[in-house]
Amino acid sequence: MKAEIIAVGTELLMGQIVNTNAQFLSQQCTAIGVGVYYQTVVGDNESRLRQALETARQRADVIICTGGLGPTQDDLTKDVLAAFLNRSLIVHQPSMDYMTEFFRGRGIAMVESNAKQALMLKGSDPLPNDTGLAVGVALTQDDTHYILLPGPPKEMKPMFERYGTGWLLGLMGGEQPLYSKMLKFAGIGESLLEHKLIDLIDKQTDPTIAPYAKEGEVTLRLTTRAGSLSEADAKMADTEREIRERLGEYLYADRDVPIEQVIVDRLIELGLSLSAAESCTGGMLSDMITSVPGSSEAYHGGLITYTNRLKHALLGIPMELLEGDGAPGAISERTAREMAERLLERTGTDFALSVTGVAGPSPSEGKPVGLVYIGFARRGGETVAIETKQTGNRELIKLKASKAALYLLWKQLHKHDEAAERS
Amino acid sequence: MKAEIIAVGTELLMGQIVNTNAQFLSQQCTAIGVGVYYQTVVGDNESRLRQALETARQRADVIICTGGLGPTQDDLTKDVLAAFLNRSLIVHQPSMDYMTEFFRGRGIAMVESNAKQALMLKGSDPLPNDTGLAVGVALTQDDTHYILLPGPPKEMKPMFERYGTGWLLGLMGGEQPLYSKMLKFAGIGESLLEHKLIDLIDKQTDPTIAPYAKEGEVTLRLTTRAGSLSEADAKMADTEREIRERLGEYLYADRDVPIEQVIVDRLIELGLSLSAAESCTGGMLSDMITSVPGSSEAYHGGLITYTNRLKHALLGIPMELLEGDGAPGAISERTAREMAERLLERTGTDFALSVTGVAGPSPSEGKPVGLVYIGFARRGGETVAIETKQTGNRELIKLKASKAALYLLWKQLHKHDEAAERS
Repeated sequence: MKAEIIAVGTELLMGQIVNTNAQFLSQQCTAIGVGVYYQTVVGDNESRLRQALETARQRADVIICTGGLGPTQDDLTKDVLAAFLNRSLIVHQPSMDYMTEFFRGRGIAMVESNAKQALMLKGSDPLPNDTGLAVGVALTQDDTHYILLPGPPKEMKPMFERYGTGWLLGLMGGEQPLYSKMLKFAGIGESLLEHKLIDLIDKQTDPTIAPYAKEGEVTLRLTTRAGSLSEADAKMADTEREIRERLGEYLYADRDVPIEQVIVDRLIELGLSLSAAESCTGGMLSDMITSVPGSSEAYHGGLITYTNRLKHALLGIPMELLEGDGAPGAISERTAREMAERLLERTGTDFALSVTGVAGPSPSEGKPVGLVYIGFARRGGETVAIETKQTGNRELIKLKASKAALYLLWKQLHKHDEAAERS
Repeated sequence: MKAEIIAVGTELLMGQIVNTNAQFLSQQCTAIGVGVYYQTVVGDNESRLRQALETARQRADVIICTGGLGPTQDDLTKDVLAAFLNRSLIVHQPSMDYMTEFFRGRGIAMVESNAKQALMLKGSDPLPNDTGLAVGVALTQDDTHYILLPGPPKEMKPMFERYGTGWLLGLMGGEQPLYSKMLKFAGIGESLLEHKLIDLIDKQTDPTIAPYAKEGEVTLRLTTRAGSLSEADAKMADTEREIRERLGEYLYADRDVPIEQVIVDRLIELGLSLSAAESCTGGMLSDMITSVPGSSEAYHGGLITYTNRLKHALLGIPMELLEGDGAPGAISERTAREMAERLLERTGTDFALSVTGVAGPSPSEGKPVGLVYIGFARRGGETVAIETKQTGNRELIKLKASKAALYLLWKQLHKHDEAAERS
């Protein structure tokens, strides 16, 4: 099946936002064996959107539109497709009921324009919106398949992953589906990882091996066509074993989860608690951990001590350690160690992480941008502190430093598991 | 003039990279008054690229292609356009001389395939490549203008900025460029904002008015054609005044900046300091604030008190307020107020923000997902606490609650400014 992705939105044509939706949908389609042949962007304009649909119909079997399902006047994707296919729009009652309840529960007046978010084309399959109000649409007419998705990535992505891909797979019938397995690595960069696997990557045929880096982590995707998941697993087993032998110490998961999720799950399993003291990451590390649903069972809280005064006032770090001639300074292994240990005392958790460094854009204490120390303290155990060097702009350094702290914790949890096995 | 941007590259269709080139070219075209009506992505495939050119010729005056000018077999944009326009390819001698010298200077053998990077269509204008080897091409045939640019952003961007825009401006003669102005709002949703401006939006002609929502904020874009920035400002003044009259209380900036940036700048200007105590936002609020470069001048740090025990141990909130029959509980206006006031004592900052609520996915203390209380305390001033209801999934609730806290602070800073003016 040949697919075309149409992103609808004048803000894309003005260059105000970058079309990450097309990238996401292309990745998802490729993964299930639907080839994307064109991506198109068109503005919030009735006649041009209609023309884009006409062009796409001539060259694609599947047309995936994203954007223009919202409540405002320039949201017109459903109207245009309905006219294009000569179908009427009908109310999707569950969406309407949910929306009515939604506004009532919040004590907000539901303005009439909102109602159009509950419309779908007559005879189409609704795609539920678990993270917003506009219902999605999937339908087939004259051998062409159409999918309409919302524009905001937070609504579009879960809708397509949970409902859109399944709908497409249902159409494909006989063709053997693609199976992918994700191996997730932390504590190693993309180029070093690729370097260590270059012979495997060069001779790859089946399964295929594709590394990519995203958000401070590296992912390796193995892909093969097979009749079933267990058949696919068997085809990928040798390659996976070889990769584990070479890079096992960095491999934290064999599914597409961020490291914070693996850590939170493991802490809950072990009944252990965690706190964090952050300087240069400024809250990002705690934000990552608390993005995991249920994290409150393991993560108790922490401190953000951005200034030396607060490192002293809130954590009790002696000022003579932070400032003055010959002092190690706030950005030092010693301070990272003290932060973790003193936080542990104050919070009473089993584990404590600490991060202190230079996020930039300017050096601090005469120390270079990207220098970051990470500390780890455990109740009744030894404290560990390491020096790391992170690259990129301020946001990337914060991100990579947060991930590095999580990787240090993951390794300690791993040791914990090994010790438990031995005893 | 109507433009279409065609990005050529199979890696875009596989979702391996995001199409930032289209965004850049759209911004550049918009800035010089060339409206982009379509963006297209097509793979490294002769017949489909030809078809994309055919489609574009029917609907655009200017066709800008990026990608496919390199030395490898996949690079076929020049060949395809030459065949499409029935022109031959000729050597651009200065590019060939530069390339020959380039390889000789590095002691590398120049493989024959490299030579094609010095080719241009007969009768076209060369666009010099100051940061790479492939020469660009600009030409007009049958009233359609074509520009071919390399794919790597570090070559494409300088080529288009230095030579491509000038070539296009030369074609336009009289037409005036577009000017845009962004108005940024917080504390109001997209539909309510549009509802309050619907009569203006309905009768819009010049300037045009377009609202869009992103990351918990709403942006309104005013756009007009004018001979200069000051002329554009004058044309937009009446509309802007009307919008300010209706929505001034939510309008925090007239340029495209996030609210945290406006707040950090203002705090630094006033020499005031800030700390934050977070529960349900779990560090996201502090992370947002510290994402602003230079924020350490105003933001001193804070606490993340995820559990009641830490609300008591780190902030000193009495346990009888948090738990037990008849207690207001952790998720209450009273606790938000206490968190802000007690944080202020502990950090000694001028202002303190607090957030406590239910991010979900499950209710807490029998209170519904999305219920969030925000507190604000100031040295020597009155404490404020408000109740808000946020919608969406866990991540969105954290995001919107963080933005709501920033909006409360922004309003307080505003009052501060007004009080200063009066005194």
